[in-house]
Amino acid sequence: MRRLSAYLRKLEDLIEKGVEQVSSRDLAEHIKVGPEMTRRDLGMFGQFGNRGRGYGVETLQSRIRGILGTQKEWDVALVGVGDLGRALIRYPEFSPRGFRFVAAFDNDPKKIGTRVAGIEIHPTSKMKSILTRLGVRLAVLAVPPQAAEPVARQLSKAGVMGILDFSSAVMAPPDGTVIDHVDISSHLEYLSFRVGSTRSRKQSKTRSRKQH
Amino acid sequence: MRRLSAYLRKLEDLIEKGVEQVSSRDLAEHIKVGPEMTRRDLGMFGQFGNRGRGYGVETLQSRIRGILGTQKEWDVALVGVGDLGRALIRYPEFSPRGFRFVAAFDNDPKKIGTRVAGIEIHPTSKMKSILTRLGVRLAVLAVPPQAAEPVARQLSKAGVMGILDFSSAVMAPPDGTVIDHVDISSHLEYLSFRVGSTRSRKQSKTRSRKQH
Repeated sequence: MRRLSAYLRKLEDLIEKGVEQVSSRDLAEHIKVGPEMTRRDLGMFGQFGNRGRGYGVETLQSRIRGILGTQKEWDVALVGVGDLGRALIRYPEFSPRGFRFVAAFDNDPKKIGTRVAGIEIHPTSKMKSILTRLGVRLAVLAVPPQAAEPVARQLSKAGVMGILDFSSAVMAPPDGTVIDHVDISSHLEYLSFRVGSTRSRKQSKTRSRKQH
Repeated sequence: MRRLSAYLRKLEDLIEKGVEQVSSRDLAEHIKVGPEMTRRDLGMFGQFGNRGRGYGVETLQSRIRGILGTQKEWDVALVGVGDLGRALIRYPEFSPRGFRFVAAFDNDPKKIGTRVAGIEIHPTSKMKSILTRLGVRLAVLAVPPQAAEPVARQLSKAGVMGILDFSSAVMAPPDGTVIDHVDISSHLEYLSFRVGSTRSRKQSKTRSRKQH
């Protein structure tokens, strides 16, 4: 599934460059898998490609958006209008991908009633009534870790079915709700690990050279 | 490797709660793998646990930080001081995990010379001299997608070995540099897919009920 998003990024890139056809080899190279896997991935959802000619870029883009469910626009709620929340609601890449923020919530009395990206900030106590009325199914959670789990439960009760959580909170997803986590610190830890082991290899090489 | 970060989050959570011992079963449950895998993961890095008593929470935390290379602090550079960059440099979770921003770069003349989170913003043309002098090895990239690849190459020439890229740019990592991507839109697409397929199942149930 994650690979479909990666194909989509590559296809959007190709559309911008005016490319009309793409081979499974090129798509595969982009996401660092074998061309066999790409052919299998795309084959699972029907017959897209033509042997020898590859895939029509725009057709494939529209089919993948159909599968991902982003051909129509999704309404999204933001909870937590701190620095990160503000950056996310203004993030320019969401709208072209089919996501539109329609509601924002925070518990800071200084923020309530003000606007961010043109959207009024409401207290979290109003989440249920507002989100039920608007029929919002997706939410972005940018609250401190300790608030994440209770807010996720409230969102679930308000009819939200998918939550993208930016806290590093340890939580169980409420029944019937899918939670995806973006733990930014973990990504830096991963780099620290990768770079650290490269560096120690280099250092030990230098050391052993000096010894000899 | 990613699982080590997840164990670390759980251990930090337990330390905050005053818990001193943890079983492989509890750790495994948190990251949704079998306890066997957790025992194997932790066993790979030496003998941590005691049969029956589990793991000492603080010892395990310190060992995992040792493996990840985050026991000492890493200096980090930010490139791109837009909304997202500003949120990232102020992100409160980085410092307790061992990451400290020491330099910020942007090409907007209005931003150059101003400060964000106490750090002066320099033009990207000064990246090489500043980062070489400071010996910075990690960078966070929050520039528009079309700028990501050239900036990544410059960072690599400035001695940066690990880059966390927040654009959805399609790029090849420069030689000797590790790039990790956080593509926020892809996470929303994943939720759209998961929620969409749940919803269609529900809708088709309702429809078939109405028909009978």
